[in-house]
Amino acid sequence: MQNRPNRVYLDHNATTPHSDRLKLKWNELLELSGNPSSIHQDSRAPKAWIRETRQKIADELNCSPLEIIFNSGASEGNSSILKSVWDLLGSEKPEMLVSSVEHPSVMKTAQFLQSKGAVIHFIPVSKNGEIDFNFIRQHLSRKTSLVSVMYANNETGTVFPIAEISEMAHAAGALMHSDCVQMLGKDDIEFENLNVDYATFSAHKFYALKGTGFAFVRKNSPWVPLINGGGQERARRGGTENITGIAAMGIVLDSLSEVSDRVKRMTSLRDSLEKQILEKISGVTITAVQRKRISNTSSLVIENVDGETLLMSLDLKGFSVSTGAACSSGNPEPSPVLLAMGLTRDEAQSSLRISVGWSTTQEQVDSFVDCLVSVVAKLRELNQIENSGVYEF
Amino acid sequence: MQNRPNRVYLDHNATTPHSDRLKLKWNELLELSGNPSSIHQDSRAPKAWIRETRQKIADELNCSPLEIIFNSGASEGNSSILKSVWDLLGSEKPEMLVSSVEHPSVMKTAQFLQSKGAVIHFIPVSKNGEIDFNFIRQHLSRKTSLVSVMYANNETGTVFPIAEISEMAHAAGALMHSDCVQMLGKDDIEFENLNVDYATFSAHKFYALKGTGFAFVRKNSPWVPLINGGGQERARRGGTENITGIAAMGIVLDSLSEVSDRVKRMTSLRDSLEKQILEKISGVTITAVQRKRISNTSSLVIENVDGETLLMSLDLKGFSVSTGAACSSGNPEPSPVLLAMGLTRDEAQSSLRISVGWSTTQEQVDSFVDCLVSVVAKLRELNQIENSGVYEF
Repeated sequence: MQNRPNRVYLDHNATTPHSDRLKLKWNELLELSGNPSSIHQDSRAPKAWIRETRQKIADELNCSPLEIIFNSGASEGNSSILKSVWDLLGSEKPEMLVSSVEHPSVMKTAQFLQSKGAVIHFIPVSKNGEIDFNFIRQHLSRKTSLVSVMYANNETGTVFPIAEISEMAHAAGALMHSDCVQMLGKDDIEFENLNVDYATFSAHKFYALKGTGFAFVRKNSPWVPLINGGGQERARRGGTENITGIAAMGIVLDSLSEVSDRVKRMTSLRDSLEKQILEKISGVTITAVQRKRISNTSSLVIENVDGETLLMSLDLKGFSVSTGAACSSGNPEPSPVLLAMGLTRDEAQSSLRISVGWSTTQEQVDSFVDCLVSVVAKLRELNQIENSGVYEF
Repeated sequence: MQNRPNRVYLDHNATTPHSDRLKLKWNELLELSGNPSSIHQDSRAPKAWIRETRQKIADELNCSPLEIIFNSGASEGNSSILKSVWDLLGSEKPEMLVSSVEHPSVMKTAQFLQSKGAVIHFIPVSKNGEIDFNFIRQHLSRKTSLVSVMYANNETGTVFPIAEISEMAHAAGALMHSDCVQMLGKDDIEFENLNVDYATFSAHKFYALKGTGFAFVRKNSPWVPLINGGGQERARRGGTENITGIAAMGIVLDSLSEVSDRVKRMTSLRDSLEKQILEKISGVTITAVQRKRISNTSSLVIENVDGETLLMSLDLKGFSVSTGAACSSGNPEPSPVLLAMGLTRDEAQSSLRISVGWSTTQEQVDSFVDCLVSVVAKLRELNQIENSGVYEF
């Protein structure tokens, strides 16, 4: 990330490094300091960047530019959407279905709405990544305002069958939202086939800047501005636009035309990584390997190894990986996502997430596996010594 | 703004150009791509930037770093604060006092809360910029949860007596909020003397980037996260932090130690501007010139000239100014702020806002005045011909 050639970054689901295209155009962004809402000439370049980036997103998602609302990222998008639906439909339809493996921005908003009287049904997801269709069927009713299921889980990479769930939601008269943060740049799909009413995206998950993102809001879907203000975003999101962030996103979006090749490369790197690990380290399980996953993510349970200790040992050797969502780190509790999927506390505490990226090489994967083999062996040896009681008094 | 040496930018209240310090350090920001919430090494530099910027703000405001919440800017801050207070205190204290010249992010949020049952008393502000203390006294009661008055008005530059209003609010058991967006970099005051419970700031108003800002929230003041998410900002504002924006703010904050000199320079430029205009153009009134104003702002009413036409004529000659808040532009209605202050529609429609900045020079001011003199003369001549009926059929 920080131009340290000896470090290997394998945590692309937490955030991505800035794309090469963005690096090349970085100085252009410095010149963009006008307020796009002004009338005079200094507003023109920023206004044009906003318009062009919005159009590129619309082209990518095959939607109308008017269905894109720029914001500070998916946490804002998710909060806005759940609160909007509750605010406008809650009295008539007080229930929502939310998958039990959502990002904290969905989970915490859902819990906030519970405190306001909303009834939230958390949809179970099994250990192998299957979402419980029966549960959805049983709990969907005319009282359901919204179903919220992420496109792909940030910890396991599991891709959920959004199109099918959308169909069920719509048949019951409910709206459908999907947190699509782990989609762009990591998978090559036709967004419009998901047929959702709302979707959320963060620029820093696809090689642009942190603090910027956008929401897809299908025409005529309920919307209440979370941030009131001037007439920006057609009065749907106040505040002077984050021009640097929006322009950076526009620059990186040009790279998405090459995403198909990148996805193939990342899939092959991830598969090579998993094959080598399974061959060289005993007692490793790959979580939800049976299901469709995005190209870049591998979630391992490594028996008899503490995930956090493993992460820190790997960090010292120059490898950046994670144990779960970055947003929850610093928290000594094991990943709520893995626990929700039915992993035991021990399993969740022995988990490691590896997420490759556009610039990951086969050499990096190989050297990571070598390092993992030796670190796991060492930690297991220490574990054994501790458990044998030699260090006890 | 866009490195066009022949253009003169006199619209610093709409937004400011990027500071020279920021330009010098621009490439450093490109390297900051780690997620500060990660545990591994790539999180360290962004984490350090967040910590250091927060400390610099705390030093500037003379408050605790824990009282600073980073966000996407003052529109988010203002929305969060009004909604938080309503959410936690509204049932017991359903009334708020809000000045009638606030930014749309306060006005629209107040109107939104009205739709939820809040009683909002809009405090009158007179033509010469005086806020109505009697009104405040009459409407403050044990039912008042919050008083919201901006530090300085973005259109006229009028500085309101926040410390006195805080005292009145606190005496009545109400909380005090001030939108301080036009304070940093434009005035040299001791923030702590304002004695407010909440204050809001946008980085792009003090020579850093758009899409970033922060709220001051005094310890133990009511707070409900608007954006739910991970544990960022001590769980008070979710979403991966806008590292580029926060670091840029940190860089620019170093310049605030020199603000006293800058304020003197801007005051002298503004005074020279007004003196020359009053000498050279007849029928000009400076709005609220009698009151204390921030250093850089001049709001003129130029008789028999349409403000919008004037703005566009000046734009063509290379000068960027505005007729009112940038956020409201594109709106054919005259400035709601000036109307609220009791200017007639004609006066409001003949208004022009000039706001100088750190890099404005005496030469720029002089050339602007020359241009204004000739453009106003021309427009008045055209007006006269039209009014004389020569062009009528």
